[in-house]
Formats: sequence, structure tokens, C-alpha cells
Amino acid sequence: MIKIETTRTVPQLQYRQGIAVDASRVVPEEVPIAFSYRGSTHAVMMATPADLEDFAIGFSLAEGIITHRDDVLAIEPEEAGDGIDVQVTLKDASAEALTARRRRMAGPVGCGLCGIESIEQATRDVPDVGASSLSFTAADVHDAMEALGRAQVLNRSTHAVHGAGFYIPGEGLLAIREDVGRHNALDKLVGAVMQAGRRGNEGMVVVTSRLSVEMVQKAAALGCPVLVAISAPTALAIRVAETAGMTLIGIARGQDFEIFTRTDQLNTDTLNGGSSSHVA
Amino acid sequence: MIKIETTRTVPQLQYRQGIAVDASRVVPEEVPIAFSYRGSTHAVMMATPADLEDFAIGFSLAEGIITHRDDVLAIEPEEAGDGIDVQVTLKDASAEALTARRRRMAGPVGCGLCGIESIEQATRDVPDVGASSLSFTAADVHDAMEALGRAQVLNRSTHAVHGAGFYIPGEGLLAIREDVGRHNALDKLVGAVMQAGRRGNEGMVVVTSRLSVEMVQKAAALGCPVLVAISAPTALAIRVAETAGMTLIGIARGQDFEIFTRTDQLNTDTLNGGSSSHVA
Repeated sequence: MIKIETTRTVPQLQYRQGIAVDASRVVPEEVPIAFSYRGSTHAVMMATPADLEDFAIGFSLAEGIITHRDDVLAIEPEEAGDGIDVQVTLKDASAEALTARRRRMAGPVGCGLCGIESIEQATRDVPDVGASSLSFTAADVHDAMEALGRAQVLNRSTHAVHGAGFYIPGEGLLAIREDVGRHNALDKLVGAVMQAGRRGNEGMVVVTSRLSVEMVQKAAALGCPVLVAISAPTALAIRVAETAGMTLIGIARGQDFEIFTRTDQLNTDTLNGGSSSHVA
Repeated sequence: MIKIETTRTVPQLQYRQGIAVDASRVVPEEVPIAFSYRGSTHAVMMATPADLEDFAIGFSLAEGIITHRDDVLAIEPEEAGDGIDVQVTLKDASAEALTARRRRMAGPVGCGLCGIESIEQATRDVPDVGASSLSFTAADVHDAMEALGRAQVLNRSTHAVHGAGFYIPGEGLLAIREDVGRHNALDKLVGAVMQAGRRGNEGMVVVTSRLSVEMVQKAAALGCPVLVAISAPTALAIRVAETAGMTLIGIARGQDFEIFTRTDQLNTDTLNGGSSSHVA
């Protein structure tokens, strides 16, 4: 069991109102974490060294290496230099699919693909999450963001990490994960939801960051039909959410938010949603 | 010449105080941008489709593919599927070094490295920028951040992109670049400084984001001895800045900021820095 602290207290010089004072601050740790399959490393992430099992599962799903929790037989984090090498053992079928994909990816000089293939991979098709509708109210969006804020323990001490949570209407926040990187936080959350044996279409993913396309791809891989963020989406994130049949909500602050795609999942019935109404 | 809009106006449903209103918002575009050398793609970034020449140069420097602007002979962006493939032609020596490095990197199944090698690459040695001291005052930090804020044109319309600027004390903001990704914004800025024929040790890099280790590595690759950010650094970013002899400043807001490494470059002389003093 590897245990690396997730924060450190560092000395600093605070400059306030023209006066310099010796002080200290709690900052988040950041560690290179490699994911290796069959002894070969797939990628290295700069991440918060916590929840490595969840991270391995969520990352493997997002990369299309696995489709179910059971595709992973073992997860063994090992210290490796200044970082952690997470050895993931896959079921035979998943491992063979990965090996075949890597052979296909390997260009003439090793890591290269031709530009068009790499670009197509970056904007690859997302799963259709539109079939499973999740009915939620404006109050759910507000409650989910509030619950996320309260649960961000690491961010309370550092004010410098992202959080991702899974909120089930009527049940509350199932899980929350934090990381110096927003993609990592979401990968870890996805892994946590899968480990809990819950399905993505039971709730909504809520995040503290902006919505780039990769955030939409990761939530869609989980099968989650609603993604909510404090900040704004990119145009590509909106297009991909539309394709996936996902409700994309941004600028969720206090009672207010903005819906960019598939507004039909928001239940504006006054009995469920409070005093909501729609002005065209 | 490829011209893709950097923003889009999208329809949305704004939910304010319990009332839903049809509205619209300007969001930043996000496009897969591949960098190819000798016809083989090195990496694909999700980025704002602007300043592609600066991006190619800054990225190539950060990746250790080039060391000078002159190592790049041509930069040709081409439309490729839903993205842009930027073909970079290198001087022979740089191209051969890259090919050799790729051969070394290519593991048994194509893209894999063993974990320890990948991790060592992620935390690779940074250039020593400590030799060239840059004297700056608290007023410079404040002025630099103010100037950066004023120059963020794309962020003014979208409130959703990062900015990176190069500030020269006594001269002002030399360049500023914006992108949906903070690493991309910094790569573009680095390229812009190199294109302008300026050296990194003439000024400070100022950014709107947090300071992860890659931000320090990129500023160090430019040879810049001072990196300033609105938000906080990670513990690893601090350690690497220390190794590089770089002054790392975070939480730079209004008149206040916090210095984490190499405080000696801050000129606290009252003649230059205003009414500053140091209380232990």
C-alpha cells in the first residue's frame, strides 16, 4: 500500500499591503502516475496521489480499454522513481483488444499517427446516453452543487484542486473525488461510481471546472445523461453533448444555471421543481 | 491560411430565480490540433484555433524538439477532418534528434514505455534559469497582472479561457495569448516571445491559472526566471521551481501576492518598490 501525502505545508513570503511577512501555506501534492497494462505504460498523468484504484478504473473506461468494472482483475500501484506506476491486470479479452489497438496505433516511428487518425481519435464517437432519461429539478442542480462544495475536503485546505461528484436525485451525493487536475478528478469519480456498483444513468455528474469536450466524453462513457459545471462549456463540448443526448448545464451558481442541450430532462413541473416557469 | 472562428454564439435556456428564459451565450471554440514532424504526429491538443505558429514553436520548445526559433524551417497548418494538422518542418539536426528519441521511446507494443521511464520523462530536469537574475518590484507584479487582465480579449466575451502574458519591467506587456487550455496558452505565449526575438530572462511570465509542474517546465524552457499566477502552485511545481532557480509567485490578486521560491529577485528597496518592508 503506497501512501503519499496529498498536501504539503510550505514556507512562503506573503506580500500584503506592501509588507512582506514570513508565512506558510498548504499546497496540493502533484505526482506522476503511470498506468501500465501488460507491463507497458499507456499514459502518465500528473495527479493527486489518492484514490488510485478508482483512478485506474475510471481512466481505463474513458480510454475505451474496459467497458465494465469486472474487466479489471487487479490494480497494483508500485513506487517508481518520483512517481507511482499503477499496474492494471485485465481480463484476457480486454488485454487482447488493447494490444490490437496499440499495434494499429503504432506509426512508422513508434508513437506517431498521421494527423487525421489522431484527430479522429480525439473527437471519437461518444456513447448515446439519451435513451435513459433522468428527471431532475432546478432544486436538484442547486442541491448537487451545494453538496459538492461541502464535500471538497482537500480543496478546503488548499483552495487549489478540482472536485467531481455523482448526485442521485432523492438520494444525495453518492461520491466525490478531488484532484489537482479536473480530468483526473472525473476519472476517479467515474471509477468510484463503478466500484459502488451504480449505473451512470441513476444520477448527474457535477464538477467544479469548465466543460471541455473530454469532460463530456468521460461522463458519457459512464452512461451519465446529465453533466453540471460551475463554469462554461466549450462549443465542441456542447456539440458532443448534443450528439450523446446529454443535458449539459454550465454556470451553475447559487439558484441559477444555464442549460445548453437537451432541456427536456429538467422537470419544470411546479410540484417537483418549486416555482419554476418558462418565459420564451 | 486556415481560419476557424475562436468563439461561437449558442442558444441556451437561462434559469434565473426559478424562471427559465431563452437566451444565448458566447462560448470558446475547442478544436483538435495535431503537431506533425516528418509526416508523423507527435501529439494532439484540444485548443483554441488561433496563433498556430506561436503554438507550434512554443510546443516544440517545451517538448525539447527544438532549442531555438531557427530550428523550425516551416509551419503549415492543414485542415484535417474536424481539426487542424500543423506540419512542422525542422532543420535536419533537430529532425534527426527527434527521430532518435522516438525510436528510444517506442516500447514493445508501440506507444508504451515502462512506467519508470515515463515517470522520469514527466519530471525531467528543467533548465537552470537562476543564473540570470531579474530584478522586479511588487508594483511590477501588480502592473503585470493588471495588464494581463486588460489584454484578455477572448476571455472578456467568453469568461472561459486562460491567458498567459510576458511582462518586461519598465516596458510593459510584450505579448499575451489566450486558449481554452492553460498549457496551450503558455505554449503560444512562449512561441510569441521567441518569434519577437526576445529572451525569456528579460521579463516575467504571468498566467491566469494554477501552477502545476508543467507550467514551471514551460516557463523554464523559455529561460524565464519569474513565473506569476493568480492561483496557487502545487508542491511539485514549487520543488521544480526551486531546482530551476525560478521565483514562483502565486495568489497574485490586487496589491497582494505570495512568493514560494527564490525571494531574492524581488526588489524591496523602497526607492524602487514603493513602501515595502519585510517583517520576520
